[in-house]
Amino acid sequence: MIHPVPPGTRDVLPDEMRELRSLTERLLSVWGDAGYGEVWTPTLEYEEVLQRGDRRAAGAGFRTFDDHGNVLALRSDMTIPIARMVANRYQHVEPPIRLCYFSHAYRMVKGRSGQPREFLQGGLELIGVPAPHGDAEVIALVLEALSAAGLGRHRLGLGDGALYGRLLENLEVPEAERGPLLEALARRDLVELGTRVDRLRVSPASRALLERLPRLRGGIEVLGQADGPVSAAVENLRAVYELLAERGVADRVIFDLGLVRELGYYTGMVFEVYDPAVGFAVGGGGRYDDLLGRFGRELPACGVGLDVHRVHIAQLEEERQK
Amino acid sequence: MIHPVPPGTRDVLPDEMRELRSLTERLLSVWGDAGYGEVWTPTLEYEEVLQRGDRRAAGAGFRTFDDHGNVLALRSDMTIPIARMVANRYQHVEPPIRLCYFSHAYRMVKGRSGQPREFLQGGLELIGVPAPHGDAEVIALVLEALSAAGLGRHRLGLGDGALYGRLLENLEVPEAERGPLLEALARRDLVELGTRVDRLRVSPASRALLERLPRLRGGIEVLGQADGPVSAAVENLRAVYELLAERGVADRVIFDLGLVRELGYYTGMVFEVYDPAVGFAVGGGGRYDDLLGRFGRELPACGVGLDVHRVHIAQLEEERQK
Repeated sequence: MIHPVPPGTRDVLPDEMRELRSLTERLLSVWGDAGYGEVWTPTLEYEEVLQRGDRRAAGAGFRTFDDHGNVLALRSDMTIPIARMVANRYQHVEPPIRLCYFSHAYRMVKGRSGQPREFLQGGLELIGVPAPHGDAEVIALVLEALSAAGLGRHRLGLGDGALYGRLLENLEVPEAERGPLLEALARRDLVELGTRVDRLRVSPASRALLERLPRLRGGIEVLGQADGPVSAAVENLRAVYELLAERGVADRVIFDLGLVRELGYYTGMVFEVYDPAVGFAVGGGGRYDDLLGRFGRELPACGVGLDVHRVHIAQLEEERQK
Repeated sequence: MIHPVPPGTRDVLPDEMRELRSLTERLLSVWGDAGYGEVWTPTLEYEEVLQRGDRRAAGAGFRTFDDHGNVLALRSDMTIPIARMVANRYQHVEPPIRLCYFSHAYRMVKGRSGQPREFLQGGLELIGVPAPHGDAEVIALVLEALSAAGLGRHRLGLGDGALYGRLLENLEVPEAERGPLLEALARRDLVELGTRVDRLRVSPASRALLERLPRLRGGIEVLGQADGPVSAAVENLRAVYELLAERGVADRVIFDLGLVRELGYYTGMVFEVYDPAVGFAVGGGGRYDDLLGRFGRELPACGVGLDVHRVHIAQLEEERQK
């Protein structure tokens, strides 16, 4: 007789657990050496506190109630709780603040069965260092930690989460039309995006840029093809790349100007990490310069979250191939 | 502006987190060397699965729903989830099965503010080894792990959770009266216990035993004062003590025949761990020979759960005194 566990959750037995603990220690060692201190935040938070960070992120979680009837939510990521914690507990600490974590997060993922609803995230948050130096530090530490964990084939897709939105704004596309365009882009639905762009009342050159931009993917040369109103964001990506080249990790970067991460709080550079052994991104992150301010401490910030189980799968495949 | 976290939960900052991770590694190292493999179970379980283990334990937790309307509960301990996991995943594994864990558990603790609602538990479960050898192994590994963590003044209160209930049964006390008596004992309310015992229609000798037993506390000599219907349980405690003496840890044991742990699944030996630096028990456990059977695998078992934060407080105090 089998007693089921909820879909998207699972038991971890000793052999796997030993490997996960060892993987955690390897990532933590790279991040610890770089000055990142590990923190823990409560699994349950007041939903209205999480919503202050991002309305959509708060809705992704499981809800419960405390004994006074307040709505509590299981954290769906660690970035918002850490932003909340920094505002509460680091009020008088001079930035930069470097924090990392290994914690489970929870998402309802309605209707998409097979997807995890409880997953172990390992990540870091760099608070108080603006672009491009902060961006490069976080990206380099992700790439270096994965190499330390034994991965050898990982790549990082790099874009700017605010790029397309700013372009639409710049071209004076009415606000009501921007939302559906950005949603089509987030879904990577370039057919619908094209149809909607065709209907816009903009110049042929602008239309061409709006259609070309999300398809720009490749080496540093693609940045030369994105010009005009998006040049500030593109110059930041170029500067990040140069800083990564100095640290010797730029060869893992693939520019992807159509990349938009799902969460709504990104204000600049965004990235996703891939490994050929895993069918989904093994992690991702980006810059969120507005989030800390929503909790009362205006500081630029960026961060990353890795799915530790997926990194583990990549690690096992790497060892198998040796 | 402070953004509150739910009462009974808290943030853990880097200095403390580093110490908690190091403490976890020390405990894990002792238990790993003894053959215990670390496991993880989902934070959320179907409430009806937890209730199969213990109706009261399941009610202690926070509840939520999945997208099909099933009631999920946050685990309130790890013993029931591990019993469920052993029935599911270790069906064909020859006992003994030795497992350990470091996981957060959640309790609503209505009306008792100041008490933690989220706490990190570290513990082990020994499945398939009956009393007294299983009892002694678990107790010895708790005492040895705490010594390895640097504690020097910890003590272990040892009793039998089924002792008083079996005595009441033996004396043919009507079932309706047994419940309130056991509840008074669990609350350590010896005044109410005495009043209720006075009202029982039993012989003067039985009445005296019912009043004396919960007050028996001390060295091995107290076992000589508990006789008659409870001699089987007392003989087991004596055997456990002798096995602990062979391992050189018996000097930390204080017999406490009035000890009853809160959870309802204990069938034999129970214990609590104390340290002078902490106002509450830093952990406890006992034998639960019926629990695995409720999930379809009849195996004797016993285990322990330590409150890692409380052990940490004891550790800090120990270091301060040096």
